[in-house]
Amino acid sequence: MQAEPDAFLKSLFHAALAAADPLRVVPPHLPAPPRGRTVVVGAGKAAAAMAKAVEEHWPGPLEGLVVTRYGHGLPCRRIEVVEAAHPVPDAAGRAAAARILERVGGLGPDDLVLVLISGGGSALLTLPAGGLSLEDKQATVRALLKSGAAIGEMNTVRKHLSAIKGGRLGLAAAPARLVTLAISDVPGDDLSVIASGPTVPDASSFADARAVLEKYRIEAPVAVRRYLEAAADETPKPGDARLAHASSVLVSRPQDCLLAAADAAWRAGVTPLILGDALEGEAREVGRVMAGIALSVCRHARPIAPPAVLLSGGETTVTVTGQGRGGRNLEFLLSLAIALDGAEGIHALAADTDGIDGTEEVAGAVLGPATLTRARGQGLDPKLRLRDNDAWPVFAAAGSLIETGPTRTNVNDFRAIFIER
Amino acid sequence: MQAEPDAFLKSLFHAALAAADPLRVVPPHLPAPPRGRTVVVGAGKAAAAMAKAVEEHWPGPLEGLVVTRYGHGLPCRRIEVVEAAHPVPDAAGRAAAARILERVGGLGPDDLVLVLISGGGSALLTLPAGGLSLEDKQATVRALLKSGAAIGEMNTVRKHLSAIKGGRLGLAAAPARLVTLAISDVPGDDLSVIASGPTVPDASSFADARAVLEKYRIEAPVAVRRYLEAAADETPKPGDARLAHASSVLVSRPQDCLLAAADAAWRAGVTPLILGDALEGEAREVGRVMAGIALSVCRHARPIAPPAVLLSGGETTVTVTGQGRGGRNLEFLLSLAIALDGAEGIHALAADTDGIDGTEEVAGAVLGPATLTRARGQGLDPKLRLRDNDAWPVFAAAGSLIETGPTRTNVNDFRAIFIER
Repeated sequence: MQAEPDAFLKSLFHAALAAADPLRVVPPHLPAPPRGRTVVVGAGKAAAAMAKAVEEHWPGPLEGLVVTRYGHGLPCRRIEVVEAAHPVPDAAGRAAAARILERVGGLGPDDLVLVLISGGGSALLTLPAGGLSLEDKQATVRALLKSGAAIGEMNTVRKHLSAIKGGRLGLAAAPARLVTLAISDVPGDDLSVIASGPTVPDASSFADARAVLEKYRIEAPVAVRRYLEAAADETPKPGDARLAHASSVLVSRPQDCLLAAADAAWRAGVTPLILGDALEGEAREVGRVMAGIALSVCRHARPIAPPAVLLSGGETTVTVTGQGRGGRNLEFLLSLAIALDGAEGIHALAADTDGIDGTEEVAGAVLGPATLTRARGQGLDPKLRLRDNDAWPVFAAAGSLIETGPTRTNVNDFRAIFIER
Repeated sequence: MQAEPDAFLKSLFHAALAAADPLRVVPPHLPAPPRGRTVVVGAGKAAAAMAKAVEEHWPGPLEGLVVTRYGHGLPCRRIEVVEAAHPVPDAAGRAAAARILERVGGLGPDDLVLVLISGGGSALLTLPAGGLSLEDKQATVRALLKSGAAIGEMNTVRKHLSAIKGGRLGLAAAPARLVTLAISDVPGDDLSVIASGPTVPDASSFADARAVLEKYRIEAPVAVRRYLEAAADETPKPGDARLAHASSVLVSRPQDCLLAAADAAWRAGVTPLILGDALEGEAREVGRVMAGIALSVCRHARPIAPPAVLLSGGETTVTVTGQGRGGRNLEFLLSLAIALDGAEGIHALAADTDGIDGTEEVAGAVLGPATLTRARGQGLDPKLRLRDNDAWPVFAAAGSLIETGPTRTNVNDFRAIFIER
């Protein structure tokens, strides 16, 4: 019997992954082939799989270059696939970004540039603007990370230190027609945020970028300050005619994956409730909140009557204070299990849709009423493990880790809590 | 226009409070008067109001004594109302507990003991068992609090160091008929947990209490260790015939208050969704999760289509690291507001149903899209205020604090997030 809820939850996860699988979601959105050349470029965790999807369905000649994370590559025949570092950029990513800018330059109005964008593209597509060094840029971003600046503020600065982000790749492709196909991994699915929007207008300005550095009293390198002061080459703003040749399509969003899982749940006779596609918060605290909602389903048939499954997406965070192993999904699950305290009839799955939950080996795990009992049977104290950010051994002991390898897509985390009765 | 969502949210809060108002919920559950005497005893934040409700509706003679928190008293004519300290017990509470045990002793089978129980009763009804001092007990509880013991483990120890908790008040009242009327403030509404269950069976044992001290390596005072070893006087267990004279009624639960608020929302044309009556977690993180759910309502009409209101109860926690003012509901709201970042059409209310959110002056607050703008206009940085556990000035600046004074009831926190569209 134990295997059934696990199998059900895994079937939902697979339905969610299928809804973000480039080989399924890219082909229906391919534009009509141009009279001229077709150049494919792109960046992100899904870049190689998106390139392969294009190759397999494109009716005409094709050339190009995409950059993806180490381990996320796939052999393509006509599109070159480069692997580079994520989340901290490296020289391979920088070289690929420069070559991508070169590739889209010098095309004519009869040519087409297909840009394949997905989560992780911002780090993979790194090209410092006007004479800045990678070190200058990295020092600035590192200082911002420590300062408590919001992600939007950080991106304002990033876009104004880049030769490719904030619409600059789009400008470089003119006068060729440009179509962006994007897989979203950001709250609100804003195209100017996914991979820092290399092909779409940027509402922020050099003045905004300077204001962010001032607000957080960032001691940026001199070269960075000078470049931002000079403000010589503003990013294209919304409505900018220089991007009139460019259009974009979102081919998959976290919400689409939750809807696919919800549909699979309905078909299995279980009522789904989607709580949100962009939930954030400290992983262990999100686990406690979700436990409260699941227990309310058991006790009061609210917010929904069992059998039911609570679905959510988004990215939780882990503030690391311990020495252990395990990513945010395992930490979420361990906290959830502790809060549920073996409650009968409640099972859960949490996994990163890119297949890598912090460590390289697991995507996530499933849990049931007996999970912690099994871990205790092997001498593990769940609360101590949680305190040490060490959820991995608990789920290893329970034999409930999920290993997918890199999925070559990314729509953030997938969480499902199944309440049988 | 701004006033309307606030008024709507306040009407839901008032509907919730009405569903926990002793003057409304106690009278329908009063038992038939006995042939003999009626003795009323009780403890908790609602004790005085419950006593008044009994007095006003009791058809016969009446006498008794209840203990409530300082500031929560109400003048009664026939039932003595004593005020004592909460959450750290004091001598007034101890003296009242001793007198309550005396009051219920020596009654006959034709007499009736009415026990009025509500949240806070555990601290207010303190009477160390067999020769232990209040200091012995306090030292033990303090060490447990620091140890990370679960609340259930803590209560196991408490019940076995008490002369009145864990069913002992119930035993003392025999052979008189005993009826407990309880207002729940605990997850799961377990009568053995509310005020540490003075009139109901206790499933835990002296051996369990010793095991808890051992598990957390608590250095309890010698007198405490000796008393637990002697294990001379076990609490009554479930099915114990010595409590056959006792029965209990839950007159109000957090869920009843959420249902009342949901009903009020329906009548106003707004769809309610009850997420749970016992949500827990660090207040600021619960705020971030709720923001994610509210934004999903806006963007995707999930888990519910607007206009909608997300309702929840339970007690969040605040880990204090700063120097500021403000209880858990204000901290929740400030974090929620920061995460919503001025999102149009979202308003929220959070308040403690006992009327006291950490500080003596406010029950909670409301917020809308302009709340943080107003606070910034007065020179306050919301993120810095949150970092300093200092939410109070933000809502004071916005003019949106809710002041009720002590409500003389307690069903934990009430949270409502209204999404207009």
